[in-house]
Amino acid sequence: MNDETNQALAAATARAQECDARDVLASMRQAFRLPQGVIYLDGNSLGALPASVPARMRVAVEQEWGEGLIRSWNDAGWYQATARVGAQIARLIGAKPSEVMACDCTSINLFKLMCAAAAAQPERSILICEEGNFPTDAYIGEGAAALYGKRVLLANQDNIEDTIKQAGEQLCAVALTQVHYKTGRMLDMARITSLVHAQGGQMIWDLAHSAGAVLVDLNAAQVDYAVGCGYKYLNGGPGAPAFIYVREDLQADLRQPLQGWFGHANPFSFDQAFVPAPGMSRLLVGTTSVLSMIALEESLKVFERVSMVQLRAKSESLTQLFIELYDAHLAPLGFGLATPRQMSERGSQVSLTHTEGYAIMQALIARGVIGDFRSPDILRFGFAPLYVSHSDVVQAVRVLREIMQTGVWQAPEFAQKKAVT
Amino acid sequence: MNDETNQALAAATARAQECDARDVLASMRQAFRLPQGVIYLDGNSLGALPASVPARMRVAVEQEWGEGLIRSWNDAGWYQATARVGAQIARLIGAKPSEVMACDCTSINLFKLMCAAAAAQPERSILICEEGNFPTDAYIGEGAAALYGKRVLLANQDNIEDTIKQAGEQLCAVALTQVHYKTGRMLDMARITSLVHAQGGQMIWDLAHSAGAVLVDLNAAQVDYAVGCGYKYLNGGPGAPAFIYVREDLQADLRQPLQGWFGHANPFSFDQAFVPAPGMSRLLVGTTSVLSMIALEESLKVFERVSMVQLRAKSESLTQLFIELYDAHLAPLGFGLATPRQMSERGSQVSLTHTEGYAIMQALIARGVIGDFRSPDILRFGFAPLYVSHSDVVQAVRVLREIMQTGVWQAPEFAQKKAVT
Repeated sequence: MNDETNQALAAATARAQECDARDVLASMRQAFRLPQGVIYLDGNSLGALPASVPARMRVAVEQEWGEGLIRSWNDAGWYQATARVGAQIARLIGAKPSEVMACDCTSINLFKLMCAAAAAQPERSILICEEGNFPTDAYIGEGAAALYGKRVLLANQDNIEDTIKQAGEQLCAVALTQVHYKTGRMLDMARITSLVHAQGGQMIWDLAHSAGAVLVDLNAAQVDYAVGCGYKYLNGGPGAPAFIYVREDLQADLRQPLQGWFGHANPFSFDQAFVPAPGMSRLLVGTTSVLSMIALEESLKVFERVSMVQLRAKSESLTQLFIELYDAHLAPLGFGLATPRQMSERGSQVSLTHTEGYAIMQALIARGVIGDFRSPDILRFGFAPLYVSHSDVVQAVRVLREIMQTGVWQAPEFAQKKAVT
Repeated sequence: MNDETNQALAAATARAQECDARDVLASMRQAFRLPQGVIYLDGNSLGALPASVPARMRVAVEQEWGEGLIRSWNDAGWYQATARVGAQIARLIGAKPSEVMACDCTSINLFKLMCAAAAAQPERSILICEEGNFPTDAYIGEGAAALYGKRVLLANQDNIEDTIKQAGEQLCAVALTQVHYKTGRMLDMARITSLVHAQGGQMIWDLAHSAGAVLVDLNAAQVDYAVGCGYKYLNGGPGAPAFIYVREDLQADLRQPLQGWFGHANPFSFDQAFVPAPGMSRLLVGTTSVLSMIALEESLKVFERVSMVQLRAKSESLTQLFIELYDAHLAPLGFGLATPRQMSERGSQVSLTHTEGYAIMQALIARGVIGDFRSPDILRFGFAPLYVSHSDVVQAVRVLREIMQTGVWQAPEFAQKKAVT
């Protein structure tokens, strides 16, 4: 690295340290266990381990399961966990506690809602899904649409509004992800929801990359349905249960075909006929993964000590810093920027492009800066405001520059594709 | 208790101790942590905690999640866990390792298979479900049938064969639970499967109360599809992932609508179009609950040290002893027997009936003998052969007699219904 760059990065470090000193969330990092020598910029894929989770899991395994056994369904509150965790998440996304349940995985929850929307308006034939979105959304959309005789229209983030208008009276429902998994670009939830409603359609938002990271107000935007992920910014652990939201006034008439016993009005009366539970419980199917649910519940307690406004402000500050450093130090090395520069148009991640992105990311991970790669050329960096500092951001850029300038990323081991990228 | 009864129970205890001394599985009890002073006869609802699970969970939480973070998808083998655990279960149910996946919950897996069977034979209109079975099976059956324009015919364990024959060429698929959740009655898998095939239908077995408790040979019976539960006799922990089986030759053409990204041929290429994975992976949907899956994987290791033949032999011995003691000591007190006396017609549980069954069971649990109650009058006792002894069986009967004779079960606290029975 030349002297000029070194000086610039040293100045950036000094400024970052000042930001960290002023950061009202700085102490939250202590609420997580992060490995030594690692800068973790992949909390958008798997959140870090909250420090209180290991002890909570020991109690869950050794006392609740081991000692309490079946009695813990009542005595340890396992039975109510889906609703309890749902209520914890509700306050992070602008929903009422009675509008959210934690259960199953995001894809399955999306299926329930697409079926519910399809069944709610049988006379309308079009379901809009997002081209280039995280693909499970469109796969599930195709799966559900086929069952209800609907057709899926694909729109992308640029032509979504035109597509909604063109669908006109045939518009049944629109399913979009608020923050794009590759680019981090964020859509205007209130505007698009309102446009969908104007056409008589229903709106399903996927909050996988929003919940716990950006300001979401489902009630203010009058959103019909939403799903989201428990293991990204919510830090619930690998494969943590997902969540599902239905606006209160839509719950009583909602029907979805995954009608398992936990969705019954009286699961333990073991009636022959299915009678859906009155509220959100009708979205439940079978027995929840209790151990995974308890990890999520414990993890969410971290959020009780912060406001989403604080989180969003720090997230903006971190992503802004990274983009500034990109301009100065990474763009000249052949990287591109895939994330919008406009603050209101991005989530809590910044994505760079590079044709050799895969190998570069592997080299970066080997040096302890953990982001991830998305085909064909995206290097993703997630800035979880609870545990990432401004100093981390500068250090990540410094290491990335070193990797490029030494050419270490060209070592053969970094080219080998892994099962999970 | 009178002297005669005391003497008879003392003699039964002596005989039980002899059986325990000869029991080749007796040492397996050491592989579990069971609370002091408890006789656990509810392993058919939630299996006991295997002793090696707490340490394994600490590694999963603190090292794999905490230290490994996102890297553990590759480095700790999280990505392959669904298939790996499926293969562990396969050997317990007479299936090939490539025919079983661990994933989701039983109800959701049943939905996938009912949809697959419905889609496989669109011209056949009848789906047979079981009246009086664990109700989620019929609820899910109704949910799936409605999507494919099928009608559900309900049959019970007594008229199932006639119903299959009557359905004739309209028979699309039959979904039955091998061992009844209330009565413990076991159906003849090979005979019924063969009958269904003779009508051109496909057979779905729910092994919730079979896997890990009775001899199951799916391949020998040429069973098309099966599902089962991870948290009962497999001891995988509360809400452990379920499993799903598809016979090898049916996998290539199978389609099911829960087509999430984990069911894609190349999940990490993030293609726009859904292309199902070649084998059982096409039954996967979204990210699995890794922590719950790891608990199940560790729990299943206990089964590596025993054969299902040994397990079944001990299970038969335990249930036979309980029925003998019922005849001598419980029938005279007003209890009835809901479980078949014929060994080949029952699973690993024995169910009694009593009009005051709920309060009696609560009193029994308060005295440390844990079974459970199923409406309206069933007291269920599960005999998990890995950790229940013959002496436990005698002691359970002794305590149940005491509760009846002292009338302690009539205390008001035992009448109060709990959320989970």
